[in-house]
Amino acid sequence: MQDKILDLLKKKQEYVSGEDISQHLKISRQALWKHIHHLKEAGYNIVAVPHLGYKLVSSPDRLFVSEITSKLHTKFIGKKIYYFDEISSTMDVATDLGLKGAPEGTLVIAEAQTKGRGRLGRGWSSPKYKGIYASFILRPKISPQNAAILTLLTAVGICEAIREITGLEAKIKWPNDIMICDKKLGGILTELSAETDEIRFVVVGIGINVNNNKNSLIPHAVSLKEQKGQSYSRTEILQEILRKIETNYLLLQEKGSRKIIDKWRLHNISLGSRVKVSCQGREVEGQAVDIDIDGGLLVRKDSGLTEKVTSGDVTACR
Amino acid sequence: MQDKILDLLKKKQEYVSGEDISQHLKISRQALWKHIHHLKEAGYNIVAVPHLGYKLVSSPDRLFVSEITSKLHTKFIGKKIYYFDEISSTMDVATDLGLKGAPEGTLVIAEAQTKGRGRLGRGWSSPKYKGIYASFILRPKISPQNAAILTLLTAVGICEAIREITGLEAKIKWPNDIMICDKKLGGILTELSAETDEIRFVVVGIGINVNNNKNSLIPHAVSLKEQKGQSYSRTEILQEILRKIETNYLLLQEKGSRKIIDKWRLHNISLGSRVKVSCQGREVEGQAVDIDIDGGLLVRKDSGLTEKVTSGDVTACR
Repeated sequence: MQDKILDLLKKKQEYVSGEDISQHLKISRQALWKHIHHLKEAGYNIVAVPHLGYKLVSSPDRLFVSEITSKLHTKFIGKKIYYFDEISSTMDVATDLGLKGAPEGTLVIAEAQTKGRGRLGRGWSSPKYKGIYASFILRPKISPQNAAILTLLTAVGICEAIREITGLEAKIKWPNDIMICDKKLGGILTELSAETDEIRFVVVGIGINVNNNKNSLIPHAVSLKEQKGQSYSRTEILQEILRKIETNYLLLQEKGSRKIIDKWRLHNISLGSRVKVSCQGREVEGQAVDIDIDGGLLVRKDSGLTEKVTSGDVTACR
Repeated sequence: MQDKILDLLKKKQEYVSGEDISQHLKISRQALWKHIHHLKEAGYNIVAVPHLGYKLVSSPDRLFVSEITSKLHTKFIGKKIYYFDEISSTMDVATDLGLKGAPEGTLVIAEAQTKGRGRLGRGWSSPKYKGIYASFILRPKISPQNAAILTLLTAVGICEAIREITGLEAKIKWPNDIMICDKKLGGILTELSAETDEIRFVVVGIGINVNNNKNSLIPHAVSLKEQKGQSYSRTEILQEILRKIETNYLLLQEKGSRKIIDKWRLHNISLGSRVKVSCQGREVEGQAVDIDIDGGLLVRKDSGLTEKVTSGDVTACR
């Protein structure tokens, strides 16, 4: 009901009389008053003027479901959203939902994570109300061997969305980092639940530093706010990211991996540079020359041999 | 405490006085009497003779934890066992445990499954007290691309165990069926939880028809009892299977995939025969010539070209 009241106020953008709202939503004036009270408590700045009614002045910087779904216009991503003020990890909740059969596009968002996860069992700093911490479920008809393409298309979607909203040139560092000016803005974590030859479902997690101040960022990290000197609506950024990811996912289904990889090349900063990749106890050093159809990085070593690495940490050598 | 009482009775294999048991286990005679009563209810045939004491005459055909762990002698498989009289699926419970960090070797067994699962979302018939329905957790340091080797080594372990206990020549039909005389005796289901480049954990499930009568078997299926005309202790068979799987898993870690594939070739009935593989909407027909290091089946088509199939249903053509 509170979502419906908000919808009405947002549509009107002017004063709406309490009587009109009550009649339209078939609730008592007293019930309306209570809902408005709760909305104010949640951070919505709603002014009430006698004889004029209610007006929404501003919405809080929260990733409320009603805020995300309003004007989202996606086909499947975010059609079902689970919202948490604080949670251990959106990955864990989304995995649970996936095991229980939640449909493709199901989204889990949290204002803060107490055990945010990064790649290879590492943590992800997730301070409250500062960043975007979200995981969504995909059920692609691809084999586990090809799952890395989902990381690539998510990275592309994030870069496209950030450029569109902020104008910043976000770049991809293989395999899963989103960078701005050589500092880490965000990351992607892709986890599979699969048979050996068929994916049951995939959970893709994204973490983006949006309104973090310098003191809430780890070294070598950056936020959109730090980079541009202004705060952003996390809701708008998340919405655009979801739209762009969905577009790229549909492109993958229609045209195959090649199109995604072409886009990925446009946004990456790994190819062409000299890299050192630590991969399962050994190191491969050389020039990153290309990415292959499975998402592996092709490194041309000084010996002239080209080696494909599918995982590991990349250090740029200068 | 009941396990301890059973241990005592099993070790002695003769009458043990109630006083001796009570003193040894530091419980009252009345408590002992109650425990014995519960054991009898669970199906243990324990006779009590005045002045002589208690004697274990026979154990019930149940996969009780105490029965499995007694004389199991494995290093890690089955060190922790979760037992259920009836459950939806051992796969689901083991996956839950895996997500919660259960250690390698954790075993889930059920006397019956209401939603036993087979490959590609199919069911697995799991009538009560007739078969072995078990799932165990592995945490191998291999990439998701190589996970099929775990299905192969499990299949090898099952064949070795069945041959050792029953003398029957169980055979492997690629990718995951255990066959006796062209009828299905069992199956293997391998499910991963992974990042795109690193396995978090694997759940391997096995289903074996042991004491099923003909009327509780689906067409083209067989049980050990039907084949040999005698019942078997499911406990003994499960124990031997666990031992053999562990041995092969340790062999994989020490010597790599090649050794497992060599063993697999010895037990398989797919290689050399003409097959038709339905794989993601298309069919590949030809002679199954070999298996590759990733567990894929190499099929030489009539055109002379050899194609690798990594999944799908195999029909033998005659």
